[in-house]
Amino acid sequence: MRSGDVRAIARAISLIEDESPHAAALVRDIFPDTGRSYLIGVTGPPGAGKSTLVDRLTAETRKGGETVGVVAVDPTSPFTGGAILGDRLRMQAHAEDPHVFIRSMATRGHLGGLARATSEAALVLDAAGKSLVIIETVGVGQDEVDIVRTADISVVVLVPGTGDDVQALKAGIMEIADVYVVNKADREGADRMVTSIESNLSLQSFGDGEWRPPIVKTEATTGRGLPELWQAIRAFRAHSASTRVRRLKARNQFRLRDLLVQRYLEHVERTLLAPGEFEALVDRIAAREIDPYSAAEEILTRSLRQP
Amino acid sequence: MRSGDVRAIARAISLIEDESPHAAALVRDIFPDTGRSYLIGVTGPPGAGKSTLVDRLTAETRKGGETVGVVAVDPTSPFTGGAILGDRLRMQAHAEDPHVFIRSMATRGHLGGLARATSEAALVLDAAGKSLVIIETVGVGQDEVDIVRTADISVVVLVPGTGDDVQALKAGIMEIADVYVVNKADREGADRMVTSIESNLSLQSFGDGEWRPPIVKTEATTGRGLPELWQAIRAFRAHSASTRVRRLKARNQFRLRDLLVQRYLEHVERTLLAPGEFEALVDRIAAREIDPYSAAEEILTRSLRQP
Repeated sequence: MRSGDVRAIARAISLIEDESPHAAALVRDIFPDTGRSYLIGVTGPPGAGKSTLVDRLTAETRKGGETVGVVAVDPTSPFTGGAILGDRLRMQAHAEDPHVFIRSMATRGHLGGLARATSEAALVLDAAGKSLVIIETVGVGQDEVDIVRTADISVVVLVPGTGDDVQALKAGIMEIADVYVVNKADREGADRMVTSIESNLSLQSFGDGEWRPPIVKTEATTGRGLPELWQAIRAFRAHSASTRVRRLKARNQFRLRDLLVQRYLEHVERTLLAPGEFEALVDRIAAREIDPYSAAEEILTRSLRQP
Repeated sequence: MRSGDVRAIARAISLIEDESPHAAALVRDIFPDTGRSYLIGVTGPPGAGKSTLVDRLTAETRKGGETVGVVAVDPTSPFTGGAILGDRLRMQAHAEDPHVFIRSMATRGHLGGLARATSEAALVLDAAGKSLVIIETVGVGQDEVDIVRTADISVVVLVPGTGDDVQALKAGIMEIADVYVVNKADREGADRMVTSIESNLSLQSFGDGEWRPPIVKTEATTGRGLPELWQAIRAFRAHSASTRVRRLKARNQFRLRDLLVQRYLEHVERTLLAPGEFEALVDRIAAREIDPYSAAEEILTRSLRQP
């Protein structure tokens, strides 16, 4: 896997996706070899053309010799098999290129399961030597925002012409953008959307030497604007070299909290409580015999070492 | 608040939204009086016209004497103040009606903070005697899906004419829909979207007497289709009376896990670890001196009561 073998990478990510008991050992093992990739988070509403944009961006970065791993968080229904189909279609564009690896992750689990799986898949691609790892997420959920927010750079993709520019701008992703992309820029309303973003940016005050997110117009289907996008990403990278450590810290803080929580719940539900006890407590809450705060307090007290 | 006083409800929800220490006591106090409202989850991509639809649905249900609370999860940027502005605009339609309460919640906190706040705001409206509580969320994040999935009924709103029908269908919300709404049904492509959903549904097998999600076409701006939507909701409610307990259970399971996790993290970061210790550990992870799994394990072991 460390040598970039495609099948080995795929197997490693599958372990993570399946929440295999071996996944923890794997991450533990590869962790010292990670932290070298530059992590690009790409997000935006469904239909913004993110997949095509990421494919084109991949091609653009390859020209300069970057090696690329893509993790697409694809909340496709498991019964339609869309994620796998999507991977096949998307891989075709880079099928001849051993230095590109694309993988979709489907929604699963609870309490941050997908965010954890995504971030661990990125670690695998990092350890496999990819110089760039692109994480592509749909939507504005808290977990997804956390994924993108803690990347080295956050690219927010918007699209004009749905008549819902304001909605798009309301999508809670304005604060996290390091670079804006207005995709499908040939559509009517593209310039109006650029103006909306500009006026939104003008409400914020940027200090001396502080990065002001640029707005890049693209047409992912034709490739227009992609060199400019890649240029904007490199500009941010150069600008933020000294502050990157803050992102890395946020990312690892997120990771540690998340693992801690997962491990604690496992302990409570598998070890601390007798079989069926958790369910019984939930039933008592549903029946209003106990409130959830008191129930949580009770479990917490039982689980914790006394001071 | 229990008598439905608007300002008291608003204050109670503010306590929750601000993560005030009094919020836990409040929820504890009102919890025995909850569980009476029928909880309607409404979700869909940005720009699907959910706000207008929910406003119209509220008006429709008022005709039959329902009292309504709305919690809109609005991931608006805090610096634009959009959530508050949105509330004001939305309240106008029901300004004369003391039996309607509408509140937007903005994104904040981490690890499910918004999901928790939303679900607790719904409890407040429940205790305040609203017969219906509508939770409206944007996007497809895990937390948001959990909120809607554990409501008594999940309404998924889609919109044609963005040229991205498939994207919308891929949005991970197909499994949770009890009722589909194709809003802006006057747009081109509405019938094609209905057909797509139909064909997607036909891939699933529905057992004898099992609910098959209906598809309702609406034009929220004119009110067309709203009586049919309300009829579909009541039909589901009648159909699922016996199985509702399963949803209630899922909702309380989610709530208990979530609170447990929140309390545990608070304990670790505020009580167990010395000031700065958590940060120091994060720094060691960022520097690759320790991997996150080992760090989590170390904290877990220190925190837990020995068996």
